[in-house]
Amino acid sequence: MNSFVFQMPTKVYFGEGQITHLPVPDELKQLGTKVLLVYGGGSIKKSGLYQKITTLMEQAGIEFAELSGVDPNPRLASVEAGATLCKKENVDVVLAVGGGSVIDCAKAIAAASQYDGKAWDLISGKEQVIKALPVVTVLTLAATGSEMDNCSVITNTETKEKVGLLNSVLVPKVSFLDPTLTYSVSKFQTASGSADILSHVLEVYFNMNRDLEMLDREMEGLMKTVVKFAPIALEKPDDYEARANLMWAASWAINGFINGGKVQMWSCHPMEHELSAFYDIAHGLGLAILTPRWMEYVLDETTAPKFYDYGVNVFGMDPTLPVMEAAKQSIERTEEFLFDKLGLPRTLTEIGIDGTNLERMAEKACGNGVIPAFRPLGKEDILTIYKMCL
Amino acid sequence: MNSFVFQMPTKVYFGEGQITHLPVPDELKQLGTKVLLVYGGGSIKKSGLYQKITTLMEQAGIEFAELSGVDPNPRLASVEAGATLCKKENVDVVLAVGGGSVIDCAKAIAAASQYDGKAWDLISGKEQVIKALPVVTVLTLAATGSEMDNCSVITNTETKEKVGLLNSVLVPKVSFLDPTLTYSVSKFQTASGSADILSHVLEVYFNMNRDLEMLDREMEGLMKTVVKFAPIALEKPDDYEARANLMWAASWAINGFINGGKVQMWSCHPMEHELSAFYDIAHGLGLAILTPRWMEYVLDETTAPKFYDYGVNVFGMDPTLPVMEAAKQSIERTEEFLFDKLGLPRTLTEIGIDGTNLERMAEKACGNGVIPAFRPLGKEDILTIYKMCL
Repeated sequence: MNSFVFQMPTKVYFGEGQITHLPVPDELKQLGTKVLLVYGGGSIKKSGLYQKITTLMEQAGIEFAELSGVDPNPRLASVEAGATLCKKENVDVVLAVGGGSVIDCAKAIAAASQYDGKAWDLISGKEQVIKALPVVTVLTLAATGSEMDNCSVITNTETKEKVGLLNSVLVPKVSFLDPTLTYSVSKFQTASGSADILSHVLEVYFNMNRDLEMLDREMEGLMKTVVKFAPIALEKPDDYEARANLMWAASWAINGFINGGKVQMWSCHPMEHELSAFYDIAHGLGLAILTPRWMEYVLDETTAPKFYDYGVNVFGMDPTLPVMEAAKQSIERTEEFLFDKLGLPRTLTEIGIDGTNLERMAEKACGNGVIPAFRPLGKEDILTIYKMCL
Repeated sequence: MNSFVFQMPTKVYFGEGQITHLPVPDELKQLGTKVLLVYGGGSIKKSGLYQKITTLMEQAGIEFAELSGVDPNPRLASVEAGATLCKKENVDVVLAVGGGSVIDCAKAIAAASQYDGKAWDLISGKEQVIKALPVVTVLTLAATGSEMDNCSVITNTETKEKVGLLNSVLVPKVSFLDPTLTYSVSKFQTASGSADILSHVLEVYFNMNRDLEMLDREMEGLMKTVVKFAPIALEKPDDYEARANLMWAASWAINGFINGGKVQMWSCHPMEHELSAFYDIAHGLGLAILTPRWMEYVLDETTAPKFYDYGVNVFGMDPTLPVMEAAKQSIERTEEFLFDKLGLPRTLTEIGIDGTNLERMAEKACGNGVIPAFRPLGKEDILTIYKMCL
């Protein structure tokens, strides 16, 4: 079993009303006097959240600059603009108000603002991130888990590269998680976000290393939570219990808890990053389409026992089923969840993606080598899986 | 649903060899230059751990004083002696090497050393703990979870009081968890420790507040882990996987993760604290004897659904069973685990405790009022449960 170091530095305020009554300004003041407020396309203005937070800051005498218009699949251009603003305005702390894209962008800004060269040097890994401004988040979407994790995924639209930057200095210092802020999330975004949460757990769960089995049981608990509550949130968008469970599950799916010393074996994420880099689709949707096909592709006699556990412990399938039969049914149950219960499109064709770029995407997904995953995936494997998704 | 603030400040080094190769001195140096080394009855000398750690500190030029002889159910006298030493030697950081008793004692020392009055003022809650020296732990027993929690339980042998002090300043800064250090733990201590872990989860799980159901699923995962791996550790004391699972489950059972905003409803712990205060028995053993009797006492039509979940999701019982039938069987399965699989004594009588002090203990357990638990417990309730344990 591999050893590991565990540290979970984010302070989380969880629950309804954590924004209005809340020590947002107090927490900001602990970290500095000048804030960069980062947000997306204006939904926080419609919902009134922008007004609430800026009023709180003004009342507390906190100065702030603003960067708005951060896109889903956040772009290098936003990072560069934010970093320039931070330098110009002597910003001390970056406040992200939004979903994973806004938070990812804020993290990259926090790092790029402390670096003299080009932001892409850091994001692409050419240069090492040494330091970053502290990041505080107010979350409006349960999905990426960026509110407690060390990761920022940024898209370079020129080179069609979508790259994940991982560094412990990027972990948010404080995150505010108020489930009521997700009531207004659309059905589609709720469904995509839930597929993303499920995928974060699956990427760690499907691992040939079975060490520290406790974590498998904990992962199953997270997946059961998503499978139960995502359809409820779709049905009734203001169901507090459903939104709260999804929100907290999203954070724990990727905040480091479930990792232990398990070697990370991510498969669907690298394949999906090419999809959203080339076609700018919702990340969770790409994962939903890929996941069952990837499962079918990697299922064999050696991997079946893990699928059996998944089926029995997450979907409550009959434990007396033969292992391979249970494994196959677990994939059907996954499809049923993603496509029937969440109502997401089942194929790339349905969302207007054809075979044109698949070969190039497959090459890029594995960096012309092999993704060292649950089942190692080379270019031909990935191309086959993409084609199965058409 | 209640809101809550989540923060988990302990840095954990987990895995084999974390002690020998380890940055114990590096981490200590971050916190100060003078250490108080706290340990128990000398088992760490027999095992060679004392020699390893003191050598590492000497090589790193770290000065240290020592407090040894901390008892199971650690006593006020040890806390006072440690606090005096800290003041006299200008100690900066307290290093606990041992199980929960040693760590609990170190935490109380850390607080008492920063207070001018009597240590018992702080422990009894007469005075508020404002600050404490940083605590670092090297854990040798999977049980209390003190290595990541905010609690210190201290016994006043004069007044026969056993009191829990809770304060966020007591949470250890760094903890070293090497499962191989628990290979030498006796069968009895392994069994008692496992009963303690299970009880920590049960105390939160049996709650009429069903909010944030995700946490119930996570608790079930922790309990399944204990139920599976404790018997393996008893059978094969040097089974790394079993010891690692028990060790990490012990930490997560009480480090705050499973709480969310659930109102704490502890029942068996307050009853047990009187048992070990009066008779100095192993805490986990007291919990094991009490738990199934408490379950029988509180089971009725309204509480049965929670027992049903417990039986189905932890022991894998048939979900088609009638709720009350499943509830009763879940208690039988708990007994089977504690007494048949762990081999712990089943009654107070077997360990030489008779009815003499039960009435006084029952009074003290509820402070002559009511324990506001899953089922509120007054003196007569507690006395009945104690008698059921004879």
